[in-house]
Amino acid sequence: MTSRPVPHVLSEFQVLADGCPSRPVLDHVTGRWGTLIVLSLHEGPKRFSEIRRAVGGINDKALSQGLRHLERDGLVTRDASDGFPSRVEYALTEVGTGMEARLREMVVYLYEQMPAVLDAQAGYDTRHAPGD
Amino acid sequence: MTSRPVPHVLSEFQVLADGCPSRPVLDHVTGRWGTLIVLSLHEGPKRFSEIRRAVGGINDKALSQGLRHLERDGLVTRDASDGFPSRVEYALTEVGTGMEARLREMVVYLYEQMPAVLDAQAGYDTRHAPGD
Repeated sequence: MTSRPVPHVLSEFQVLADGCPSRPVLDHVTGRWGTLIVLSLHEGPKRFSEIRRAVGGINDKALSQGLRHLERDGLVTRDASDGFPSRVEYALTEVGTGMEARLREMVVYLYEQMPAVLDAQAGYDTRHAPGD
Repeated sequence: MTSRPVPHVLSEFQVLADGCPSRPVLDHVTGRWGTLIVLSLHEGPKRFSEIRRAVGGINDKALSQGLRHLERDGLVTRDASDGFPSRVEYALTEVGTGMEARLREMVVYLYEQMPAVLDAQAGYDTRHAPGD
């Protein structure tokens, strides 16, 4: 990541600013389930039930809504085959594939840091234990 | 990013699996406000009121809770100076700095793709217009 310096002021978009159109897109990509839905499409197109199985704990409503947001933002396509019964598949677009790569970088980093995170949590809980 | 291939099966942690301890940490870092709080600390330590000002639209409760989660996960430190009145500052830890870099990569990519995203949204809304 060090080979690619990131300018501080980036563009006309400012995700920290309330009302910037990039803000809701960030919410959809991160959000409660967005990151996990995007990551689940890493290997290729999946049916609704396959995504639901891949993303532990998600329910149908959250998955439908998440996919709809990601489709509207142009990160995911929804394709229905002509066959009968029709087979509906979801896949990452080119933009979505790029986003998935960045999310995966973040998650890989998180995995690498999890021992430090678990230590920090244990230390915090000890310091904040009731009656201590 | 292409210089750093990402293995598919990454570690004993699996964020897609319900119950993996990495899942709540991902929620804190992404979540409704987590990403924006972390990004707001890019330039250096900030007081509570400075973070609130930087993150448009956040309220005190969401900011307190977000900072508490990030502190417990070891991504942010909370330092109170000895002076009077005491000055409390929040800053990224080393782990938090690494996370911020990855989140920023994602946001920079989002900014780059925003024209395509806005086009996709307009197309979706036209296709799904009521009465059409």
